[in-house]
Amino acid sequence: MSHSTRCAACKSLRRRCTKDCVLAPYFPPTNPQRFACVHKIFGASNITKMLEQLPLHLRAVAADCMSFEASSRVEDPVYGSVGIISQLQEQIIEAQSELVKTKSEIAFHNAQQQL
Amino acid sequence: MSHSTRCAACKSLRRRCTKDCVLAPYFPPTNPQRFACVHKIFGASNITKMLEQLPLHLRAVAADCMSFEASSRVEDPVYGSVGIISQLQEQIIEAQSELVKTKSEIAFHNAQQQL
Repeated sequence: MSHSTRCAACKSLRRRCTKDCVLAPYFPPTNPQRFACVHKIFGASNITKMLEQLPLHLRAVAADCMSFEASSRVEDPVYGSVGIISQLQEQIIEAQSELVKTKSEIAFHNAQQQL
Repeated sequence: MSHSTRCAACKSLRRRCTKDCVLAPYFPPTNPQRFACVHKIFGASNITKMLEQLPLHLRAVAADCMSFEASSRVEDPVYGSVGIISQLQEQIIEAQSELVKTKSEIAFHNAQQQL
């Protein structure tokens, strides 16, 4: 088997990439950065274990989510993906308070019209 | 040193908990579940490395965020914390579209009043 056919994980871990490699479908050699990132944060053996515990049809989504989580933590080593959650929660609070304000304006308009 | 003074990490890894243990301040023996969770998802050596790379005053927040991320992935092994991000994004879209609707109602009221 030539080097170029090994997946990003096996290439990085300098091992043979067998036909039943759990990581190969989700970590192609064309994107070594994607594997490097999850490897740094979760570790190759944890990623393998987590994927193995899932049915085949859910593994691609799980690998995508783990990649997103890992790259969030590489970008923001303190908050990671939790930083994004906090930002979104603030945005929701903002949008909801604007909604309350706008609805009270409508109520005021309606009251004026009735007068 | 008695067993009860070891941190949750050193207790779980069956090793001596030294005074300079990086994990001890954030993984007390009173909450073994917290360490078990981050250990399962990130691995003890990754958590140690990630904390060591941060200045002391940011480590408590980072440990909390990693614990949150890990418990999200234990609860939802496919989406993890990314599932929460998706839910929040949907809520924002909902709130924003309600806001647009409400603002157009106000514009309608205003136009009517001018007539």
